[in-house]
Amino acid sequence: MNLGIDLGGTSAKIALVGPGYKIIEQRFVVTAGFPSPSVLARQMSDACRELLRGKKAAHIGIGVAGDIDSARGIVRVSPNLGWKRVPLKRLMERFLHCRVSVENDAKAAAWGLYRTQVSPSVKNLLVLTLGTGVGGGIILNGSVYRGATGSAGEIGHMIINENGPLCNCGNRGCLETFVGAPHITRKVREDLERGQASSLQSLVRENPDQLSPYMLAVAANNGDAYAQSVWEGVGHALGVALGNFVYLFNPEMIYLTGGVSQANRLILTPLWQTLKTRTFKTPIGAVQIKTARGAAHIGVIGASLL
Amino acid sequence: MNLGIDLGGTSAKIALVGPGYKIIEQRFVVTAGFPSPSVLARQMSDACRELLRGKKAAHIGIGVAGDIDSARGIVRVSPNLGWKRVPLKRLMERFLHCRVSVENDAKAAAWGLYRTQVSPSVKNLLVLTLGTGVGGGIILNGSVYRGATGSAGEIGHMIINENGPLCNCGNRGCLETFVGAPHITRKVREDLERGQASSLQSLVRENPDQLSPYMLAVAANNGDAYAQSVWEGVGHALGVALGNFVYLFNPEMIYLTGGVSQANRLILTPLWQTLKTRTFKTPIGAVQIKTARGAAHIGVIGASLL
Repeated sequence: MNLGIDLGGTSAKIALVGPGYKIIEQRFVVTAGFPSPSVLARQMSDACRELLRGKKAAHIGIGVAGDIDSARGIVRVSPNLGWKRVPLKRLMERFLHCRVSVENDAKAAAWGLYRTQVSPSVKNLLVLTLGTGVGGGIILNGSVYRGATGSAGEIGHMIINENGPLCNCGNRGCLETFVGAPHITRKVREDLERGQASSLQSLVRENPDQLSPYMLAVAANNGDAYAQSVWEGVGHALGVALGNFVYLFNPEMIYLTGGVSQANRLILTPLWQTLKTRTFKTPIGAVQIKTARGAAHIGVIGASLL
Repeated sequence: MNLGIDLGGTSAKIALVGPGYKIIEQRFVVTAGFPSPSVLARQMSDACRELLRGKKAAHIGIGVAGDIDSARGIVRVSPNLGWKRVPLKRLMERFLHCRVSVENDAKAAAWGLYRTQVSPSVKNLLVLTLGTGVGGGIILNGSVYRGATGSAGEIGHMIINENGPLCNCGNRGCLETFVGAPHITRKVREDLERGQASSLQSLVRENPDQLSPYMLAVAANNGDAYAQSVWEGVGHALGVALGNFVYLFNPEMIYLTGGVSQANRLILTPLWQTLKTRTFKTPIGAVQIKTARGAAHIGVIGASLL
């Protein structure tokens, strides 16, 4: 019996994971509003105890959005939680009396996906999370790759066009400025306000808040030429960034996950068109790119397997 | 006693490497003009036997410019040698009756540099070769990182500006188009022909073939403002590409080698100015960037240590 916790800025999802990587039971703890670390650690520990019903867990894994020192179990910085230098491993072990691992959430998700959906013959892969932000978790030689300070995998801020749009990070033309959900919807809103012809015009006039990557995918699948062109741009930017990645890491597989990835072939077709403009055919021919199944649970399952 | 061979498109350098990674004796075999693999293998084997003087080598390592299948010792493609699918390991073992390893030359150089100049406490590093082309060799977790097909480390064709100059590879804005020696000298020649004020004007008028990164560095070090601005551009482009690399791999060290790297602080100062615009301070703060010592021998020493 393993316990996993997927700790984000809105909620902590806590799950008891059984054989076959199935979630047996889960709890949620609200984390919005920058909770105090010790209060939140106690609430999460209480939820763990409820799930365990008196049994002892061998190990609890936590995936946290942010800059994590996994060797010492410290959350260096988590902007979403408003935390700095929080010794989360120590806090949780004090309450739970069992071994606790703390890892960056994208790395936990990559590990979960690798262990549950990928053949062990695959040794090197990237899991790219396409959501509000763009994150990456890297598996190399069959293990989570962390780098010198646990910061590896930060593909969202790969600069692919120095003269591109301004990113929240202060640089220009980061991958995230082309494929992050808020950037996509902002661009669409601006285009529509400028009078761009599209079936999305009425939606944006009547319910502007409903404009989302999902609605944009529905419109594209219904034949809206403008919506299709937006996805072509997203796929192209991903193709440039993943081309850079493949040239550096030469992985066997890349998995796309997160809300934006659900656009699936709307992204994958232009992505491959761009990838195939690359000259070195051996690494490009060696990589498969897929969208992940069961993406909603991958983070917490990965945490349970840390 | 180890034997190393650094096999490029102009010559093969064959060296007997003794204790302390010192080159005891070396031979050269001309490789220009697309030599036949079996003829060249025989010439290299003869040179090896001369160096060994009847002794038996335990192992011979060969670094080859190109796409290498190091597991099977096959040169998949080497544009500089004009080779396709050459079973170099088998050819050499037939002549020499000892174990032969074949590796990509940038990976061999990275391994040589790692083993001879870097503390074993460093586990992750990039060796970036700045010459006519731009190559990369990556050490991860203390070993040469190859990826799925041995193609990893191809940083020269990282696209950093999609609207940038056209690259030989067919894409635009690859790192190589900003920092490769022929690209630098072509840009300088064009600027000077357009009347750019610089102390290099007389050199280019009188001896246009002498224009080189070395002359450009001399001019910059003598206070030529135009030459300094060219190096600032080179350093900036490297800063963007290495920023992308550091965000992905989070290495402890990056070594610059190859002719262009000899410009040293002319590159390193603007490189760091650009790197420091990155938001995530942990990985940027964790990396050291240095120029390699004894770069001319690193390839052959690395091959001997494969």
